[in-house]
Amino acid sequence: MRDRLLAAEKVKAIDWRDGVLYLLDQRALPFEETWLACTDAEGVAEAIRSKVLHGAPAISICAAYGLLLGLRQRLAAGGDWRAALEADFAVLSSALPTTANLSWVLDRMRERLERLKERDDPSQALEAQALGIHDSDREANLTMALLGVELIRKYQGSEQAVMTHGNAGALAGGGFGTALGVIRAAWLDGMVERVYVDETRPSLQGPRLTAWELAQDGIPLTVNADSAAAHLMKTKGITWVVVGAERVAANGDVASSIGTYSLAVNAMHHGVRFMVVASSSVIDLELASGDDIPLEEGEGAELLEFAGHRVVSGVEACNPLFDVTPADLIDVIVTEKGVVERPDAAKLAQLMCRKRLH
Amino acid sequence: MRDRLLAAEKVKAIDWRDGVLYLLDQRALPFEETWLACTDAEGVAEAIRSKVLHGAPAISICAAYGLLLGLRQRLAAGGDWRAALEADFAVLSSALPTTANLSWVLDRMRERLERLKERDDPSQALEAQALGIHDSDREANLTMALLGVELIRKYQGSEQAVMTHGNAGALAGGGFGTALGVIRAAWLDGMVERVYVDETRPSLQGPRLTAWELAQDGIPLTVNADSAAAHLMKTKGITWVVVGAERVAANGDVASSIGTYSLAVNAMHHGVRFMVVASSSVIDLELASGDDIPLEEGEGAELLEFAGHRVVSGVEACNPLFDVTPADLIDVIVTEKGVVERPDAAKLAQLMCRKRLH
Repeated sequence: MRDRLLAAEKVKAIDWRDGVLYLLDQRALPFEETWLACTDAEGVAEAIRSKVLHGAPAISICAAYGLLLGLRQRLAAGGDWRAALEADFAVLSSALPTTANLSWVLDRMRERLERLKERDDPSQALEAQALGIHDSDREANLTMALLGVELIRKYQGSEQAVMTHGNAGALAGGGFGTALGVIRAAWLDGMVERVYVDETRPSLQGPRLTAWELAQDGIPLTVNADSAAAHLMKTKGITWVVVGAERVAANGDVASSIGTYSLAVNAMHHGVRFMVVASSSVIDLELASGDDIPLEEGEGAELLEFAGHRVVSGVEACNPLFDVTPADLIDVIVTEKGVVERPDAAKLAQLMCRKRLH
Repeated sequence: MRDRLLAAEKVKAIDWRDGVLYLLDQRALPFEETWLACTDAEGVAEAIRSKVLHGAPAISICAAYGLLLGLRQRLAAGGDWRAALEADFAVLSSALPTTANLSWVLDRMRERLERLKERDDPSQALEAQALGIHDSDREANLTMALLGVELIRKYQGSEQAVMTHGNAGALAGGGFGTALGVIRAAWLDGMVERVYVDETRPSLQGPRLTAWELAQDGIPLTVNADSAAAHLMKTKGITWVVVGAERVAANGDVASSIGTYSLAVNAMHHGVRFMVVASSSVIDLELASGDDIPLEEGEGAELLEFAGHRVVSGVEACNPLFDVTPADLIDVIVTEKGVVERPDAAKLAQLMCRKRLH
């Protein structure tokens, strides 16, 4: 399965080539495949801020390369490059402060710098570190895909309909994706008949990104309005909801794209299993519960404008971009360190003590 | 309260004036207020088919006037007007076959024709009947508004946040609206602090129609993505979901705008009360349960096109326009004949035996 997954890899969002970071501009998808070239830390931070790409894993991988680009500029400029590099750490870590593994990745880059020996080439060392982080994400995706497929097979070893929300795919990371990695692997294994892809308002990640991505692989899919999910769970024999996560608290509460919580409530009501697939780097044991996770708000205008016109003056919109799904609505959290069924604080603490599986 | 509601009336969708039916073209809202003049049955049927207006009550009132316009043409043409009028019955009843009270209203027009005496002027008789149907809808809205407010006050007699979905308002009927009639009355009575207005994909009735309509009355409102409803129920202290209905089966199952079912599941999960407000004409005792209600599907393109481009070729969409909320998720159905708490077949049968309250 690992080899088949690798052979089936078609979509990538991040490409490090000849000392330049190329990013697939997801704002232009699904109509155009435009690649943006970044050559310094500020360019990478600006790409993150302006949503050229999305997803905690993809953003943190970019930040690692961004720091490397910064280092190369600082070295070329001469002087105290370590002090100057602090500005690059700052601009990258503040590009999207709600993304937990952005700071996790920057901490790993800093640790590598601190372990530099006299004879080490800082640029080579940080490049190896960034490539390692990128590669580790790809490996983590493979591991999660295999673990997720085992779970799906455990309850029903034949073709079934699954649902996903947002875009937890190759476009959101450095590899096959988290939730979509599991779905891809399950499809290759003959266990996915059809994927129901939530539209995911307000960003429309469903038709823009997830449908585009799954269609590249020829996976049968149906796009639906978010509000139709409950009706589809009742009428289409959906067996699993498989989603990604932005952040996971110590007790297993999960912050994810807005609408995930509503889906989880509906999955519970309909006896549909609910799987969260996320790298362990988004698990933050310092956040006791979902109440402690800061949730980003979007612009209200996104809901109040059509074709450049504001709907009605004096009307406000509430546009949260994330919500929290409490652990007791989640059947299983799949990470590259292993699987946590019916998550709680004790199980997650135990998981986080493990070495990585790969 | 009745007088205050009448005095506060600002929005209307249907205007019968000098023998012409004027319809507010809701396709142009909220940017333009354009009125469409209909002078024959086919014109009214075409307006219904092309969604100039929406909502079972509004559509059936239009059909009544449409038949009157047809009759006047048939009378003017001479010959066997009764036989010729059958074509108008047919074109109007087939304009939107899933709307239950369209056929109910046409049956009432037919009954009036059958009771015509020798000395009666058919045109005057049908005009009185159509005006009566229109007026009866306005009165029904008033009655439902008062009954609904009593229910809201019963559990909490102070300002509270409520949520609505779709547009069950003045734009959908001949009066103050069903769900929005209750919300308007509750607001006039000091019991509504804020209305959360679901966007209601794919038609976007929330920002286009409901927000426009409530803003005319100065009612504080917030538009939100459908998928954010669960998160808002958890965080904003919402006490009631108040929605309209397209059709109600004998056991109290309710067909309504897609997403209503998901809201009901979430309302149950969050301990938020769930109120359906609908004229008794949409209750169909011949449909045993929601399984028997035919549900209209929309065009998949609505979910797969942005700015005239198709997202990805080979991708399909599932775009149901209605779903069924089972009776056991509904706290109360409010009709002009009275209120049914925790609806079931026996209670609805009893309700339908009653004379109208007004």
